[in-house]
Amino acid sequence: MNLLKEMPLTEESPHTKQGGMKEFRTFSVHTSKGEAFTVFNTKNKEITQFVENNEACSTIRPAVPYILASRLIKDTPTVVYLPHNVSIGGTQVCLIAGPCSIESEEQMMETARKVKLAGAHVLRGGAFKPRSSPYAFQGMGEEGLLLLRKAGDAYGLPIITEVLDADDIPLIAEYSDILQVGARNCQNFSLLKKLGRTGRPVLLKRGMMTTIEELLLSAEYILSEGNMNVILCERGIRTFETETRNTLDISAIPVLKAKTHLPVIVDPSHASGDWKLIAPLSSAAIAAGADGLMIEVHNSPETALCDGNQSLKPEKFGRMVDTLTPLTEVMGRTL
Amino acid sequence: MNLLKEMPLTEESPHTKQGGMKEFRTFSVHTSKGEAFTVFNTKNKEITQFVENNEACSTIRPAVPYILASRLIKDTPTVVYLPHNVSIGGTQVCLIAGPCSIESEEQMMETARKVKLAGAHVLRGGAFKPRSSPYAFQGMGEEGLLLLRKAGDAYGLPIITEVLDADDIPLIAEYSDILQVGARNCQNFSLLKKLGRTGRPVLLKRGMMTTIEELLLSAEYILSEGNMNVILCERGIRTFETETRNTLDISAIPVLKAKTHLPVIVDPSHASGDWKLIAPLSSAAIAAGADGLMIEVHNSPETALCDGNQSLKPEKFGRMVDTLTPLTEVMGRTL
Amino acid sequence: MNLLKEMPLTEESPHTKQGGMKEFRTFSVHTSKGEAFTVFNTKNKEITQFVENNEACSTIRPAVPYILASRLIKDTPTVVYLPHNVSIGGTQVCLIAGPCSIESEEQMMETARKVKLAGAHVLRGGAFKPRSSPYAFQGMGEEGLLLLRKAGDAYGLPIITEVLDADDIPLIAEYSDILQVGARNCQNFSLLKKLGRTGRPVLLKRGMMTTIEELLLSAEYILSEGNMNVILCERGIRTFETETRNTLDISAIPVLKAKTHLPVIVDPSHASGDWKLIAPLSSAAIAAGADGLMIEVHNSPETALCDGNQSLKPEKFGRMVDTLTPLTEVMGRTL
Amino acid sequence: MNLLKEMPLTEESPHTKQGGMKEFRTFSVHTSKGEAFTVFNTKNKEITQFVENNEACSTIRPAVPYILASRLIKDTPTVVYLPHNVSIGGTQVCLIAGPCSIESEEQMMETARKVKLAGAHVLRGGAFKPRSSPYAFQGMGEEGLLLLRKAGDAYGLPIITEVLDADDIPLIAEYSDILQVGARNCQNFSLLKKLGRTGRPVLLKRGMMTTIEELLLSAEYILSEGNMNVILCERGIRTFETETRNTLDISAIPVLKAKTHLPVIVDPSHASGDWKLIAPLSSAAIAAGADGLMIEVHNSPETALCDGNQSLKPEKFGRMVDTLTPLTEVMGRTL
Repeated sequence: MNLLKEMPLTEESPHTKQGGMKEFRTFSVHTSKGEAFTVFNTKNKEITQFVENNEACSTIRPAVPYILASRLIKDTPTVVYLPHNVSIGGTQVCLIAGPCSIESEEQMMETARKVKLAGAHVLRGGAFKPRSSPYAFQGMGEEGLLLLRKAGDAYGLPIITEVLDADDIPLIAEYSDILQVGARNCQNFSLLKKLGRTGRPVLLKRGMMTTIEELLLSAEYILSEGNMNVILCERGIRTFETETRNTLDISAIPVLKAKTHLPVIVDPSHASGDWKLIAPLSSAAIAAGADGLMIEVHNSPETALCDGNQSLKPEKFGRMVDTLTPLTEVMGRTL
Repeated sequence: MNLLKEMPLTEESPHTKQGGMKEFRTFSVHTSKGEAFTVFNTKNKEITQFVENNEACSTIRPAVPYILASRLIKDTPTVVYLPHNVSIGGTQVCLIAGPCSIESEEQMMETARKVKLAGAHVLRGGAFKPRSSPYAFQGMGEEGLLLLRKAGDAYGLPIITEVLDADDIPLIAEYSDILQVGARNCQNFSLLKKLGRTGRPVLLKRGMMTTIEELLLSAEYILSEGNMNVILCERGIRTFETETRNTLDISAIPVLKAKTHLPVIVDPSHASGDWKLIAPLSSAAIAAGADGLMIEVHNSPETALCDGNQSLKPEKFGRMVDTLTPLTEVMGRTL
Repeated sequence: MNLLKEMPLTEESPHTKQGGMKEFRTFSVHTSKGEAFTVFNTKNKEITQFVENNEACSTIRPAVPYILASRLIKDTPTVVYLPHNVSIGGTQVCLIAGPCSIESEEQMMETARKVKLAGAHVLRGGAFKPRSSPYAFQGMGEEGLLLLRKAGDAYGLPIITEVLDADDIPLIAEYSDILQVGARNCQNFSLLKKLGRTGRPVLLKRGMMTTIEELLLSAEYILSEGNMNVILCERGIRTFETETRNTLDISAIPVLKAKTHLPVIVDPSHASGDWKLIAPLSSAAIAAGADGLMIEVHNSPETALCDGNQSLKPEKFGRMVDTLTPLTEVMGRTL
Repeated sequence: MNLLKEMPLTEESPHTKQGGMKEFRTFSVHTSKGEAFTVFNTKNKEITQFVENNEACSTIRPAVPYILASRLIKDTPTVVYLPHNVSIGGTQVCLIAGPCSIESEEQMMETARKVKLAGAHVLRGGAFKPRSSPYAFQGMGEEGLLLLRKAGDAYGLPIITEVLDADDIPLIAEYSDILQVGARNCQNFSLLKKLGRTGRPVLLKRGMMTTIEELLLSAEYILSEGNMNVILCERGIRTFETETRNTLDISAIPVLKAKTHLPVIVDPSHASGDWKLIAPLSSAAIAAGADGLMIEVHNSPETALCDGNQSLKPEKFGRMVDTLTPLTEVMGRTL
């Protein structure tokens, strides 16, 4: 029996809207095994019924609880395309750099210029900051978004910033090329669903206490709403060890790469909380197969409003990129 | 110098709006040490400036990063008052009982009747469910809220249900006496702030990976917006041990009681994931000083749509309450 | 086929030597299911062969990896009998009290007198101390054993002390009524085997990172050598939380009691590292079903050579015992 | 004041016995700062007194609790020299390979031949096995040592095997070039002290729940007895994540290299429990600065008596070495 003939999904599939996501359209048309259709079960009652009545369909369920994120559905790596000819998930290892918080125009322009020169591909900066304490600096808000955008445009860098509140999605999506979900919101399912309804690439950080399977299920929340441009980010998990702020789970990279087609990047700054560890952990991440790095770079770490201790100066970042280049080439990739 | 004379805060304090929270108004008027004013620093620039210029004020900062939640500010236990003469944080140990998910009118009415008879004080039930997978049952939504309200009203039980999305706050606040923040949203700061702007009591569950200090800081997000009716809930943390779903951190009860005036309850159902452990863990929680218990009770655990394995039948719940009663009395409290 | 007739194990069973362990002898004689014989497979080739050739025998293996420690073999609680009419695992909740380190005769005599008066049943004290650093105080050695024995004898208290080195077993067994295995040696299998060959009761502390199943397997090392007098001790596990030195795994008590017939006690002093938490955690442990408590009591905590911060003064210990008494009675036990 | 003149330590220093450890002798003679003498404080009362009376001496104490292991004492990397011109801690990244358990002569000879050919420098194999269960295969004992020695000699490979019981040290030291301390014995202080009194190099594995500081303190137990040939091994820590058997703490490599002069190697086999992860984790370890790798290689993983799932076949090991070679060169080292 050919499912395709019975149910011409192609036209109404939400997944056909994404440029660069053509494989997904193909998948939803070609498969006759039924696995994929589980995905649509909240949208189309006919399909749900078909899946439920078809024995073959249900057999995938115990295999993996996530479906669209899985390699069972799509075995070629997903590449997320960004402006300025930047992409994440392809041959190039993507370098995302910038300060923890956006603090001033001068800071952003200087940092953008220097990280671009050093080889960064994407500019990061926080405008809305998730802080444990309500009394800590909460970010510059829209004013910060404007400065980030301006600095990115000036130096040809796509930009990324965090979304804390679903209400801010329209505003942030207006400015930012990538929408970031922080570790503390990794299982904020209502935020994930709403991000799944935007067309913007989403960088999803693993929670401090989130298992690899839960991370993939959180990605599935975004994917199942029709947004296939998801980038996963390992940023350290909580353990008993106190020498580092978190414990970088380096094994998560090959484990994730085997389970999902989504790109996987690493944030050694938050994982370690110590700028002296960023270079060796960046090398390790690339050697383990990471598709990119997200690194805190601040033009004046001593005076940074947050996370100064884990920020590199632009000059040190540049020297690190130089040492990562031959390593990246040995891994068969470019930087 | 008497701060009171200089800055008559009483009138504009958001804390004066809460019934039963009179101590907070008193505090903001009486103190001359300055500690409390840090709290208002995002609202009133004059006060912020005063705190910054006054040496005595700043000394409290390193002591505890949370202020309104702290016993430094208020040393008498906070009692959260609910309809039907129920309260949490007073002499009575409060029993919250009900199913994980609201599934049908029959289920809710039968469960409400039985738990009321067994001695429960508050009825719980999930209408919006946080599920790791987007394909798992997500709850009945508003229809569920209606059934929960109906069952609570029929048997004279205040009700509690979880808020997943800040957009649902007005809807849920219309039905529910307590608004619950789940473990996964413990550091969803934008949700916490918005809950702080409602007058409704909030039950804040500790995240699986949240430290005690971070839990208190999350409570501070709610308190600092003017809502003093916060109940903390220990529900198990993630560790390496796999015999139980999570590890109930029993020490968190006396540690929290020493640090904060807020009531502290325990959820042995989620902590253990095993109904056979609920009775001994409930006894332990009361013996350690907990102000209440939140327990999953389902009239038919075998057919429950979620968490059946950790649900007690109403009859077993009743027998457990009977054994808890003399223990509670020995602890100088009532059940 | 009746295994009993073929192999009269009773005579040579090492388990028949233990007074109060008669059930074990019965078991090794009566069973015809074969499960138990796995235990002897390193000792008697005929039995091993029998088990391997007999299909029925092998079926127990996947059920639990530990056998002698399991309730499958013996469903009545094991009671460990000590001098001075003290026992652990019966109706009485056993109180073990004393200093972390033995420091002087005066200290031991005074502490012994006071804890006896307060209601303690067993006197503890470290003569050989496991210290993270080789430069920290390592204990008084044999001189300490002598002082501990003298104090125990003077006040009618059985004594317990830790064995760090298997070479010291004969010496320590000469003095001490119970041999303690510390958390760091919980999987020191060669030490466990050698303790299994003594007739002395062994108190086995759970390692900071030992699962409940591993703890039972470590007990099995002692049991399988013929020593059935094993007491298990929960003393906190390592987690991310830093408010307490370790996280007391209160659930381990009911989980262990369901799986094993061995007595289970709790050490709230090491679990919390804070004397202020000892009383609530002791109450919780008894409420959860613990068979005893091991508590650090020092006549002068401020000057203690180690762990002063987690030690109670004898007076506070006495007041705590007073408050534990009615709670213990409610639990159907005595103190 | 010159300490050297007052106390000619050189003659009686236990550290002068070690070949290749000349810096240590130099240090114990030259220093006048007093830091080093803390080390000897259990041996020589005069020195202890000197340290206590000398203000300069005491200042080092709060800095690091370990001394001989610290870079404060010796800033050049320690190189451990082995037979057959192999060393650990120098320019060459050392590859230790072989089966978990020694099972037969054929297995050892074939494995030794193949791993030598593939580029391994040291042969590993367990003769005494630490097993959670007393009923699991415990190793071949001395017969296994003989086979390991024979295989090592036949192919020019130094050998390493684990010591479980201090009583076996003389026997094992007769056969093995390196004595291994397993993760479960990482804080078995009496074993560590006795290994410190042998002249044999010791490979000390980090415990599953041992902090980096505790690992260094455990090394200090060996060093302070006069054995300076200590190699540290990161082999994964216990966390909540279950995709891998343990979580490889990759950050421990640069953290340890900054704190200690001792060589640091990585065991990706035990860290992951999955042969498919060994290649990416080995690459990551070398990129992070590891001085060597310890890898389980078995000629027939399917029939291995233990840990088959984490063992590489010799052919796969060979291909992995080929891919590690250019990476190692980029790191400025050789393989």
